[in-house]
Amino acid sequence: MSVTAAKGFTAAGIAAGIKENGNPDLALVVNNGPRLAAAGVFTSNRVKAAPVLWSEQVVKGGQVQAVVLNSGGANACTGPKGFQDTHATAEKVAEVLNLNAGEVAVASTGLIGVTLPMDKLLPGVESAAAQLSEHGGEKAAIAIKTTDTVHKTAVVASEAGWTVGGMAKGAGMLAPGLATMLVVLTTDADVAAADLDEALRSATRTTFDRVDSDGCMSTNDTVLLLASGASEVAPDQGEFAEAVRAVCADLARQLIGDAEGASKDIRIEVVNAASEDDAVEVGRSIARNNLLKCAIHGEDPNWGRVLSAIGTTSAAFDPNQLNVAINGVWVCKNGSVGEDRDKVDMRYREVAITADLAAGSAEPVVIWANDLTAEYVHENSAYSS
Amino acid sequence: MSVTAAKGFTAAGIAAGIKENGNPDLALVVNNGPRLAAAGVFTSNRVKAAPVLWSEQVVKGGQVQAVVLNSGGANACTGPKGFQDTHATAEKVAEVLNLNAGEVAVASTGLIGVTLPMDKLLPGVESAAAQLSEHGGEKAAIAIKTTDTVHKTAVVASEAGWTVGGMAKGAGMLAPGLATMLVVLTTDADVAAADLDEALRSATRTTFDRVDSDGCMSTNDTVLLLASGASEVAPDQGEFAEAVRAVCADLARQLIGDAEGASKDIRIEVVNAASEDDAVEVGRSIARNNLLKCAIHGEDPNWGRVLSAIGTTSAAFDPNQLNVAINGVWVCKNGSVGEDRDKVDMRYREVAITADLAAGSAEPVVIWANDLTAEYVHENSAYSS
Repeated sequence: MSVTAAKGFTAAGIAAGIKENGNPDLALVVNNGPRLAAAGVFTSNRVKAAPVLWSEQVVKGGQVQAVVLNSGGANACTGPKGFQDTHATAEKVAEVLNLNAGEVAVASTGLIGVTLPMDKLLPGVESAAAQLSEHGGEKAAIAIKTTDTVHKTAVVASEAGWTVGGMAKGAGMLAPGLATMLVVLTTDADVAAADLDEALRSATRTTFDRVDSDGCMSTNDTVLLLASGASEVAPDQGEFAEAVRAVCADLARQLIGDAEGASKDIRIEVVNAASEDDAVEVGRSIARNNLLKCAIHGEDPNWGRVLSAIGTTSAAFDPNQLNVAINGVWVCKNGSVGEDRDKVDMRYREVAITADLAAGSAEPVVIWANDLTAEYVHENSAYSS
Repeated sequence: MSVTAAKGFTAAGIAAGIKENGNPDLALVVNNGPRLAAAGVFTSNRVKAAPVLWSEQVVKGGQVQAVVLNSGGANACTGPKGFQDTHATAEKVAEVLNLNAGEVAVASTGLIGVTLPMDKLLPGVESAAAQLSEHGGEKAAIAIKTTDTVHKTAVVASEAGWTVGGMAKGAGMLAPGLATMLVVLTTDADVAAADLDEALRSATRTTFDRVDSDGCMSTNDTVLLLASGASEVAPDQGEFAEAVRAVCADLARQLIGDAEGASKDIRIEVVNAASEDDAVEVGRSIARNNLLKCAIHGEDPNWGRVLSAIGTTSAAFDPNQLNVAINGVWVCKNGSVGEDRDKVDMRYREVAITADLAAGSAEPVVIWANDLTAEYVHENSAYSS
């Protein structure tokens, strides 16, 4: 269902030969209107890939007619040639589909510092265009995979008659300010660009921005939301924003569940912080602590490493009032030994850590992370990725 | 030679039974004067172990007569009982050696969240006191080891007749704001506490504070510098500070060389930054990038991950002017592909990364880090540590 669950969209996914192994590597998503509204959020890494620089400009116009995405090469740190290649890709889409290149977003993922094989990519655009279909969403989702073991899609349908659907890729370099992820969301709700932007920013702030698999921020992160208006229903903005958030949360959870080499998904909830910012800072610090990530991998409820991570932050707390629960067992109370750690059952993939700062009444914040495993090391050291 | 290289000091290291495996676990260092000046720096982690809270107060007086150190238990996150145990340890040393407990520093290392076996530690203090010797420095250095594979000592002797020596332990939780390390430095130079403090802070800022093995800051880090004045030479402060820096640099390098599970020592030099703070921020970001640490482990000169790490900082730079060398080969020039990456020889343990920010003329900053390996994961997941 993916990006073609909503009416007004066609998509395709093909193997253009960008990946040497012959797997699908090029996706095309087209908004057939009647509305062509769009919003986007991009990596906050200051080293941005050429397609990010390009698509940021495209999205500023509030209108996107097509998105072309490739795996097999990030087109990051590729200098002026890289930007020319992105531009040429958009021009090719525009030529084939008779569109304005300035309304074609481009997204790339793969190895940094390598230019794309344009002799394969440009003919691939023609092939993809020829295969555009209202049922092409699944193939598009498959074509953007890199080290992902499964493709990721999600859909929420409103009783009011509109739908939000989307696809995502990302399995490494998953971190805040967005994961190394490419996400395209589509909706047939009739929503103006400004409202799309508001809904998308609000959604990513509490979903993709709170995924921290390995602390590494990508040069290529891109999340786009396109609206076709084909349902002819103008939604309630609150209901629409919640649907966008739900699709983003679903996809974000799928990213964590498929992170490179991970054996555990760690749900870190920070409660009773003085502020949301404090809660996010603490959650992030816990999420990034390699020693804790190793302990979780070893099914060791090592709460001392949680406290050690909290202690590195500037959040408001009294060390003697900190409480930590692992899978529901309060192993640390008042900054010291709590319930018996042998009560903690860590056999399952999902591990829940609750950090109670006892410092205020901010809403709980949830950060998702993964454990650190020998497989992660292997996947990221055995070959360039 | 360690802490007894300088005149006026005795030391001992024994097995008190704190470690279940029977290895040495208790060290005692005594300053026999005539001067009893001291300075110390401690972890900036806000969750501080009981011995850190105690020793911070002791050092404030500018005078330390003895230091008692144990491995086999960090006495961190142990509540009021933990602080009582630290206090009782200092009192025991005072009683046995006829000193003032308020001038006895205490340092502990090991697992967080477990109270110390005082029934073994206190008799151990008596045994250690009975073995104090001018040749005990080596044994003291051995007794503070945890997962260290070798003990670490360093000595600098001045032609002016004074000496600075020291010992260190630390192999995991190595990160800024000091590594999980216990360090005791001694000198027979005749130096007042305020001058010791100045020399020590200056030295740790550019040595231990620039070691970042795994991004994890400890609850127990302690670096103490004691002066006996036994050489009867009042040194030139500049020369003395340089000797302290040299001993710290030597010990810091030994810590990196023995970091848990590491197969590579990574020397990250940041040049042409706009400021020293920028250079440190960039060096730290590179040092903590798990994807890069994996790539280095795999002997993959993956400069894209260096740029990606630089891009997450707030340092001044233009992405299109960044240059990166790995082991002397400028694989990235002007933010894009540079020299052939196949020219990079990464077979040796030490790997040098130079990041040229082309943004200013700050002095180069060097941060030391380690690679990320399956062995690191194993050591930190297979058992509590």
